[in-house]
Amino acid sequence: MDFMFDARTQELQAQLLDFMDSHVYPAEGVFEEQLDALPDRWAWSTAPVMKELRAEARSRGLWNFFLPTTGEGNHSELGGGLTNLQYAPLAEITGRSLHLGPAALNCAAPDTGNMEVLAMFGTPEQQEQWLHPLLDGTIRSAFAMTEPDVASSDATNIAMSIVRDGDEYVINGRKWWITGAMNPECQIFIVMGKTDPDASRHRQQSQVLVPRDTPGLTVVRPMTVMGYDDHEHGGHAELRFEDVRVPVTNLIGEEGNGFGIAQARLGPGRIHHCMRSIGVAERAIELMCQRADSRVAFGRAISEQGVVRGWIAESRVRLEQLRLLVLKTAWLMDTVGNKGAHSEIQAIKIATPETVQWILDKAIQVHGAGGLSQDFPLANAYAGIRTLRFADGPDEVHKNALAKTEIARHRPAAS
Amino acid sequence: MDFMFDARTQELQAQLLDFMDSHVYPAEGVFEEQLDALPDRWAWSTAPVMKELRAEARSRGLWNFFLPTTGEGNHSELGGGLTNLQYAPLAEITGRSLHLGPAALNCAAPDTGNMEVLAMFGTPEQQEQWLHPLLDGTIRSAFAMTEPDVASSDATNIAMSIVRDGDEYVINGRKWWITGAMNPECQIFIVMGKTDPDASRHRQQSQVLVPRDTPGLTVVRPMTVMGYDDHEHGGHAELRFEDVRVPVTNLIGEEGNGFGIAQARLGPGRIHHCMRSIGVAERAIELMCQRADSRVAFGRAISEQGVVRGWIAESRVRLEQLRLLVLKTAWLMDTVGNKGAHSEIQAIKIATPETVQWILDKAIQVHGAGGLSQDFPLANAYAGIRTLRFADGPDEVHKNALAKTEIARHRPAAS
Amino acid sequence: MDFMFDARTQELQAQLLDFMDSHVYPAEGVFEEQLDALPDRWAWSTAPVMKELRAEARSRGLWNFFLPTTGEGNHSELGGGLTNLQYAPLAEITGRSLHLGPAALNCAAPDTGNMEVLAMFGTPEQQEQWLHPLLDGTIRSAFAMTEPDVASSDATNIAMSIVRDGDEYVINGRKWWITGAMNPECQIFIVMGKTDPDASRHRQQSQVLVPRDTPGLTVVRPMTVMGYDDHEHGGHAELRFEDVRVPVTNLIGEEGNGFGIAQARLGPGRIHHCMRSIGVAERAIELMCQRADSRVAFGRAISEQGVVRGWIAESRVRLEQLRLLVLKTAWLMDTVGNKGAHSEIQAIKIATPETVQWILDKAIQVHGAGGLSQDFPLANAYAGIRTLRFADGPDEVHKNALAKTEIARHRPAAS
Amino acid sequence: MDFMFDARTQELQAQLLDFMDSHVYPAEGVFEEQLDALPDRWAWSTAPVMKELRAEARSRGLWNFFLPTTGEGNHSELGGGLTNLQYAPLAEITGRSLHLGPAALNCAAPDTGNMEVLAMFGTPEQQEQWLHPLLDGTIRSAFAMTEPDVASSDATNIAMSIVRDGDEYVINGRKWWITGAMNPECQIFIVMGKTDPDASRHRQQSQVLVPRDTPGLTVVRPMTVMGYDDHEHGGHAELRFEDVRVPVTNLIGEEGNGFGIAQARLGPGRIHHCMRSIGVAERAIELMCQRADSRVAFGRAISEQGVVRGWIAESRVRLEQLRLLVLKTAWLMDTVGNKGAHSEIQAIKIATPETVQWILDKAIQVHGAGGLSQDFPLANAYAGIRTLRFADGPDEVHKNALAKTEIARHRPAAS
Repeated sequence: MDFMFDARTQELQAQLLDFMDSHVYPAEGVFEEQLDALPDRWAWSTAPVMKELRAEARSRGLWNFFLPTTGEGNHSELGGGLTNLQYAPLAEITGRSLHLGPAALNCAAPDTGNMEVLAMFGTPEQQEQWLHPLLDGTIRSAFAMTEPDVASSDATNIAMSIVRDGDEYVINGRKWWITGAMNPECQIFIVMGKTDPDASRHRQQSQVLVPRDTPGLTVVRPMTVMGYDDHEHGGHAELRFEDVRVPVTNLIGEEGNGFGIAQARLGPGRIHHCMRSIGVAERAIELMCQRADSRVAFGRAISEQGVVRGWIAESRVRLEQLRLLVLKTAWLMDTVGNKGAHSEIQAIKIATPETVQWILDKAIQVHGAGGLSQDFPLANAYAGIRTLRFADGPDEVHKNALAKTEIARHRPAAS
Repeated sequence: MDFMFDARTQELQAQLLDFMDSHVYPAEGVFEEQLDALPDRWAWSTAPVMKELRAEARSRGLWNFFLPTTGEGNHSELGGGLTNLQYAPLAEITGRSLHLGPAALNCAAPDTGNMEVLAMFGTPEQQEQWLHPLLDGTIRSAFAMTEPDVASSDATNIAMSIVRDGDEYVINGRKWWITGAMNPECQIFIVMGKTDPDASRHRQQSQVLVPRDTPGLTVVRPMTVMGYDDHEHGGHAELRFEDVRVPVTNLIGEEGNGFGIAQARLGPGRIHHCMRSIGVAERAIELMCQRADSRVAFGRAISEQGVVRGWIAESRVRLEQLRLLVLKTAWLMDTVGNKGAHSEIQAIKIATPETVQWILDKAIQVHGAGGLSQDFPLANAYAGIRTLRFADGPDEVHKNALAKTEIARHRPAAS
Repeated sequence: MDFMFDARTQELQAQLLDFMDSHVYPAEGVFEEQLDALPDRWAWSTAPVMKELRAEARSRGLWNFFLPTTGEGNHSELGGGLTNLQYAPLAEITGRSLHLGPAALNCAAPDTGNMEVLAMFGTPEQQEQWLHPLLDGTIRSAFAMTEPDVASSDATNIAMSIVRDGDEYVINGRKWWITGAMNPECQIFIVMGKTDPDASRHRQQSQVLVPRDTPGLTVVRPMTVMGYDDHEHGGHAELRFEDVRVPVTNLIGEEGNGFGIAQARLGPGRIHHCMRSIGVAERAIELMCQRADSRVAFGRAISEQGVVRGWIAESRVRLEQLRLLVLKTAWLMDTVGNKGAHSEIQAIKIATPETVQWILDKAIQVHGAGGLSQDFPLANAYAGIRTLRFADGPDEVHKNALAKTEIARHRPAAS
Repeated sequence: MDFMFDARTQELQAQLLDFMDSHVYPAEGVFEEQLDALPDRWAWSTAPVMKELRAEARSRGLWNFFLPTTGEGNHSELGGGLTNLQYAPLAEITGRSLHLGPAALNCAAPDTGNMEVLAMFGTPEQQEQWLHPLLDGTIRSAFAMTEPDVASSDATNIAMSIVRDGDEYVINGRKWWITGAMNPECQIFIVMGKTDPDASRHRQQSQVLVPRDTPGLTVVRPMTVMGYDDHEHGGHAELRFEDVRVPVTNLIGEEGNGFGIAQARLGPGRIHHCMRSIGVAERAIELMCQRADSRVAFGRAISEQGVVRGWIAESRVRLEQLRLLVLKTAWLMDTVGNKGAHSEIQAIKIATPETVQWILDKAIQVHGAGGLSQDFPLANAYAGIRTLRFADGPDEVHKNALAKTEIARHRPAAS
């Protein structure tokens, strides 16, 4: 057992920290301004400073780290070349500047998950057409699973209809919370629906590729999260599919395999979210400490008040524990695979939003009303982290599943 | 001891509930649409449906209830005519539709507090010019106290300079979080600043009336609260005062009395917030129950899950307790005055946001991602309630003060 | 609505507070010493100081207050003569000295519940033999319901067998947590069991009177609660019934009515527990304040530390809310009956242990290790309050039931 | 970074688990019975089964593991021979049977800390006389620091007087919570007091060895923890020192060095407590799962209730995080020393009791009233863990210190 990062990780951490200091943090205000000035405020990937950051990151070799060399898919030929354990602390650093960091390194969701799916299950033609532009960062993508009319935490509830008609699939239904889809550069949607409602529960679903400009596909409206539209990463769209037709070659993998593909996507997706969220929390602690130290009330710095100190201490204590569990989970994914790390992935999915939300709430409180405003990144981060308590199913679903495993572990073997 | 509302209250509750059902709830969607279509989206009071609601409420006698007939000021000649205890359950009902209810009855903050101040401390001329139009609902007002550069929870930190120059006061400084001030119909600001920095700590401040169009007063920008700009009640402005001049007759009360006036304003202001917040929570419980009952996951209604039932039960248990404490506080204000109710006012100021925020969080969780969106009033309410943990000073300041009183109560008398 | 106690209550509060100051608090240490010195340490009711306290209380008219004049049973001819709302604040005061106060006034559980049952359902002969000595305080009683082998929160799980054999009932089975039963003066047990396992679910049970000395009844052992044996109120016994025979005239009410009798007993029993627990919490706050004020660490009184102040403030804020809900519940029991107050009784059953336990935990923390020791009543109270989270069913059962009612309330009526 | 235990650790884990299964768990009931039957119930180390366990453990080489080969003191010549990181998972296993496990391996507090102090600071004569018998397990020891009259969390408050008089020290004062001291086999006390009240704040204290039978030393009484006297590890005594005289050669280290010695003792002491507490929590989870699985209420196993599953899941999620932080702290102590691990030691001191107490509370709740009784180890464990929130200073002191470090870390360097 050894808690020191390996040399490659330490080297990349240093390079990334340098890039954050020299380029990313200074660009934060610039990006917001440029975004407001764009003709289409959803087209975040066209903001000049974002393009510059991405070019700079790529030239420094800080690009596509998310693609693992371990676990279910080894995609070192596509870039990346890091283990999950090596990527984890880097993803954390990008999370410190959540609007810029992940995107600058081409490591932003949902593109990352979509690239993984295409790398694992895509045909050579699909990879040529969609994966490589995504790896190059010239287009964006979305993953269309959640639906307004069903409790989508139970993926078998998904109702969108995908019916084969000759050489085409005909798609009908509604989706919402389709992250990134408001950005016109989001060119391709991976859409999950039911190809066979009569099959067994986990074999009814398939996933197909639907280009943005396909007739019958309407972007209905943006959803807001608390009061944020999250335009700086393409928002969350409601989509309507009315007799949308795509060739059958747009199927990903096999018919009936949609549930399995979704599962394969979830493990890495979750751990990436957790890693970045730890970076969010680190920045919140930093801001909380600095504010507390610089603000005077009732004759002394807020940082001298016991209640505030208690919050800061507890933030540190909780975050240290959380980070270690995320790192161990990454290590398990590397060494025993995503399935072997299943319980741990659930555990960090449960623990991360709760912990980070708690820290953000205290950081906000230390900032007073300003903490809820546009002058600090805290409230925006809070809204984002709050969504993680639903993303891929609410906490309660994961707790339930984790508990079942735990209870079974302690059940005496039947004789 | 008797826990039944008096006949007058019950009658008004019935009338108000009828008005809510017949007019207010149906207007909720209309108002949002009209607001978006206004040339100035901040001018909420000009939305046709709002004007209609206000006319209807007034014609029904549901108007200016907030003005108490008890406690420090008896203003029955100005309307209202209710005790705090009679008003409390009515304010709760208006809180069920927070964007419309209070405004429809001319009972919305910050106008209510400003009207109370003018009723208690205004000269006949000030009342003629500002109070009566406010009571008629033809103009709006704002209260400018909080400043960006100091911890404003400690009111003695207020730094705005008010210097007498002949027959005028010259005002310089910055304010922010000035609620309502983005609405162009907000015609009058009550501004707190320092007239005598050398006086004793609580005698340095004064309050003056500053009309919106006074030269030197700039509305700099709107502040956001978790992504919301709260334009439906006039937003929260940052203001800059540069050599703003008003006649000395615009002084409210006496020089050096600003702190005292602010204190007088706080008691009723706090209890009104608490009353309305209970209405917010009641609506959240209603939505939570209905959603849980109508949504199926993993084969049964969410309302059959023990965890969700636990949330609903705990919401009810907490809210019943909170409501009783708010009602008792209102009763104390009526019977022993605002000062006599000081500890209880602090207590409800501490308890309300925590309880209501907790309930809203659970209601959101039951709604899934939709709960965070514009499709339900929950996330918006959450953001609003969250601000109450800072409003008039953060929870921690109030807890500190309340504890001091409690500790003193148990201290053996010196012999 | 009126939050002032009536004149009778205020008069009795003053009398009781005087009795507490003059007799009860001074007797606390004496009682513990006398108890340790008794030949049978379980025979708490034989301790001389307890006998003196009881004689004094009775002579002052502070006796049998628990018997209500309202609600399901009006027993003013038996003593008491108070409404639930009048008794509530008196019970609270007795709770401040939990080992002495309730017993001194002959208002200690489980005798109170047993007396109510006998008053409501007992035959004249049963009342003559058992109720009157209990009202006089010359004997003690126990209520034997909980069983070790089944989840007794679901009363229909009760397995004890009661079989009629001619003019006798033959009783077999095990009970545990039979409070008071270790005291040899506990002369009579009300025992719940099944007389008809084939009847419908809530008609299988009956309750019978079993005198302590009946052959076949064995007191197996005392149970401990967090290390305490609670000998100062007769402990909690495990009992074994082996062919225990009692005459059929010992049946309470009718066969098959046991569940109903148990329910009738629960409402008052719960509210009494809650009332006393509020007194426990009040004393804890008092001790916490005094300790914090008299103890210096790191150069200043603990009472000046923000964290401790936060605890004290939150204790006060929570307790005020809880008390009001308990009082309102008492008022409901008086005005609409125990059934009409059902949801509120559940609510206080849920809220009280959580709140009081939280306060005790903080009071303990302020006392340092001493707070966990025999030198303060805090840890003992903590253990006692902790049991309330199971008593008459765990919190979770009550939350579940309360939520069902709440959900139904918001369900649109079927057309 | 690597989360796998090394081969030596895995081997010892297997050996220890085997010893637990074959010897320790079966002895639990036996030990309690033998203890009750001893002439002196405090003399736990004389219980036959304890002696047998210790002989067996020693013969298996499972002995004195606590003495580290790394960090401040390398004592491999005295036994042990493990790093902190190797010892941690073994200590955890012993914690699963808290009354037997640590003592069986001669790894029980406070002997461990006392042996470390003697190994680091003792003279050869002191080591010969006291350390070797302790390592052999033929005597026991106690550490006398806490005092009833001062807030001992601030060690500089310690008031006990140690005055040199010729070749002797004369000791006067009171101590309490002296763990282990009720056991007559506890032959030696390490006593902290003030030798120079006029020295600087951290140089006033010294530590001296006081044999149990020294005239003037009185064991006044046992303290209880909740209702437990903890006689199974020697209780917690109150001691009175009246002109107790020991030769000056009984001084440990140098005069004025007492504070430093106490500090040296704390790091390992805390981490051992944390390790064992994790074992306590693991056993609680196991019991909670098994109980939930075997108990039926309202028609289904408790383990199928969502609320209970939530508790189980959260227990697992919290405990995994905590264990990793404790292990990382052990690794830091091994690699950068106790001082370098200072913040992490504080962090686990804060996190462990809160987490384990939470888990125990839920395990108790699942067990119903039985969970609070002598029939399960849960309530006893709860009481023990509760004391950790004070031991070596309350949580609040540690949070305060940790926060100061954190705040300083984010303070911009002065230019």
